[in-house]
Amino acid sequence: MSIIAAIETSDLRFATSRFLDGSDAMNPDPDYSAAYVTVRTDAADELEGHGFVFTIGRGNDVQVAAIDALRPLVLGRDVEAMIADLGGLWRELVHDSQLRWLGPEKGVMHMAIGAVVNAMWDLRAKREGKPLWQVLAELSPAEIVDLVDFRYLTDVLDRTEALRLLERMSDGRAERMANLRTQGFPAYTTTPGWLGYDDQKLARLAGEAVEDGFTLIKLKVGADLDDDRRRLALARDVVGPDIRIAIDANQRWGVDDAVRWIKELAEFDLAWVEEPTSPDDILGHAAIAERIAPIRVATGEHVANRVMFKQLLQVGGTQVVQIDATRVAGVNENIAILLLAAKFGVPVCPHAGGVGLCEVVQHLAMFDYVAVGGSMAGRTIEHVDHLHEHFTTPVRVDRGRYVAPSEPGSGAQIIASSRDSFRFPDGPEWSNGS
Amino acid sequence: MSIIAAIETSDLRFATSRFLDGSDAMNPDPDYSAAYVTVRTDAADELEGHGFVFTIGRGNDVQVAAIDALRPLVLGRDVEAMIADLGGLWRELVHDSQLRWLGPEKGVMHMAIGAVVNAMWDLRAKREGKPLWQVLAELSPAEIVDLVDFRYLTDVLDRTEALRLLERMSDGRAERMANLRTQGFPAYTTTPGWLGYDDQKLARLAGEAVEDGFTLIKLKVGADLDDDRRRLALARDVVGPDIRIAIDANQRWGVDDAVRWIKELAEFDLAWVEEPTSPDDILGHAAIAERIAPIRVATGEHVANRVMFKQLLQVGGTQVVQIDATRVAGVNENIAILLLAAKFGVPVCPHAGGVGLCEVVQHLAMFDYVAVGGSMAGRTIEHVDHLHEHFTTPVRVDRGRYVAPSEPGSGAQIIASSRDSFRFPDGPEWSNGS
Repeated sequence: MSIIAAIETSDLRFATSRFLDGSDAMNPDPDYSAAYVTVRTDAADELEGHGFVFTIGRGNDVQVAAIDALRPLVLGRDVEAMIADLGGLWRELVHDSQLRWLGPEKGVMHMAIGAVVNAMWDLRAKREGKPLWQVLAELSPAEIVDLVDFRYLTDVLDRTEALRLLERMSDGRAERMANLRTQGFPAYTTTPGWLGYDDQKLARLAGEAVEDGFTLIKLKVGADLDDDRRRLALARDVVGPDIRIAIDANQRWGVDDAVRWIKELAEFDLAWVEEPTSPDDILGHAAIAERIAPIRVATGEHVANRVMFKQLLQVGGTQVVQIDATRVAGVNENIAILLLAAKFGVPVCPHAGGVGLCEVVQHLAMFDYVAVGGSMAGRTIEHVDHLHEHFTTPVRVDRGRYVAPSEPGSGAQIIASSRDSFRFPDGPEWSNGS
Repeated sequence: MSIIAAIETSDLRFATSRFLDGSDAMNPDPDYSAAYVTVRTDAADELEGHGFVFTIGRGNDVQVAAIDALRPLVLGRDVEAMIADLGGLWRELVHDSQLRWLGPEKGVMHMAIGAVVNAMWDLRAKREGKPLWQVLAELSPAEIVDLVDFRYLTDVLDRTEALRLLERMSDGRAERMANLRTQGFPAYTTTPGWLGYDDQKLARLAGEAVEDGFTLIKLKVGADLDDDRRRLALARDVVGPDIRIAIDANQRWGVDDAVRWIKELAEFDLAWVEEPTSPDDILGHAAIAERIAPIRVATGEHVANRVMFKQLLQVGGTQVVQIDATRVAGVNENIAILLLAAKFGVPVCPHAGGVGLCEVVQHLAMFDYVAVGGSMAGRTIEHVDHLHEHFTTPVRVDRGRYVAPSEPGSGAQIIASSRDSFRFPDGPEWSNGS
């Protein structure tokens, strides 16, 4: 038996705003950041669990404080028992009778729980010597549903139906795992589309995306309609008619504004419209989706929890489910969301980018393919070519496809020298004149 | 001109769990707490603005850290300019391009903004020498709508319609202010109903509530159906047929469980059923409301923002709007919610209790009566007889009615000696053997 010996946190920030990487209509100047947690044990293997919450700068310290607040709930506990019942750990943390007041199940406290839960999954995968997607994909349907809290879901999806959904996919798992290893998983790129890039950079990067084998690119929109039309025309001209173009408004609009604006852009053959309005506006998403059909609405990176996803699916508010590795309370809650998406037959196309989101979320998409959704058709994982060099197991994208990771773990681990250099505000990248 | 000279925060906790005050089906052991902020200026008047976020113990330090994160956004700024445009301050804090990632508009970061905004309102009311409800009630309709951010609301309520709602109530304001001063505002009590109290204490406190002039009491339910039936029968027996009894499940159930459980309790003539399920489950609330009608559903204390209230009202998910003084981003957002409730003709019956919630939220209910909703019919503010002695202007309840405050300010100020004594973990109430 080993115990949790330390929960170490750090505030890591990368000064991406200097280059307008990641700029969009609502986030003009993000500094991609990670509220980072390392779980150490007293086991002889010296394996650590790593996890983080992605933020965009200010407030990353608040997110770290929230992870710190969880320390007393996990420190000193039996590692093997926790790893063997990560569904139990999830319930315990999420339903803590005092901490839940800070959400409940949303925002800073909920994401902090996600970081700790994900770090435990990282540790478990390293102990098993497998990539996280494989650990999950080899669980039995019963083991998978044990990870999920069906509270507040049962009017739409209960344990019995979730088991049925998973058992339906039991056949063919081995074949799909083999497919993943040989073919990888489809990726799309947002690299060309940041609002802060000028037309020349947009055209160059869009052209490079096609050369690199991507078949879908995404452009940020929503600041200025004329700019959006010009940029979409330019991108369409560069990529030709066969490449899909999605747009992302990052919550810029109300319902009527969204519909009006999107109709002005419809001629550019849009793969989807992402975050047209507040992630909380379930009915607003449904109204927009109905009025812009057949153009599809996509959302998820800011959807707070499984209860919100449940409702978005109930009302047809999203036709593309964009799970995020660190918005909800970790792997367990994302499994609940994958199950909901499978029930409604809606494809899961994860949000990624930022720092480390590609590294982690690919495991969930690959698990979805093997064990839940069972298909790659219409599925694609966002890819942005930023900051991967800081990870011990960086994503690999080849000819527009994520290569299935083979290294043990969840992908979340940042290399030690980067953790030292980018520590805010006292790491050398911040204290030396930045 | 004066500037913001200091933003001081403190972690205040009261060990209410020792007596099971505040115990319910989801919160068995709350320690009522305040993440507290004091805004100091360099003005000669030495007036301070006080505000807080109510929490129930663990995590109060995280909430304090979130308020601290706002310090750089307000320190050193022109007080008069800020006070003259609190709508502008609200937008600036809520839409901060980096901090909003932590919500957006929900949870720890959003509540922290509420504390700062409310502290500025406290300061403004003290400078005007008036209670907050009066400051708000004397604003013109145009000044009131300037305080509100209509982003994500305009499909249901825009500025023009909000102005019309307010202008409809312009006549009679003076008379309603006079009524408030002579008659006060209806209160109800939750003091008898905590789950941790035994039958004898429940019966005694229910009897005392009637003697004290209350006409509505509330009981916590949802842990055990047989217990609920026994306790409701006992309470009904003590108070007689003319006193209303509401029940509160504190989010215990899923949709089907809620309907089944409530039907088992329907014979006790329920005033409303509060928080039957997740505060995020808008469609769930609507389904429950439809299936238990004519019993009314009430919710709000955990509803994260105006966008969620908008939808609850759109779908008939709540027949009683329970605003909370510190859940959303302060006075401004609560005004948006009052306007939404007025549009849908749904009565506002604030959540209170905890520490300081009664003191602050009464101002919003009274403003609603004077300027927005325009009626006391079916309106009532929760009252719990805890911890009022720690406030410089404690609520007064007389014969079941809140007495309209006449002292300047918002009611949020905790007396200095209590702030010293209950500071966690180093105040004498915590460091001396507790």
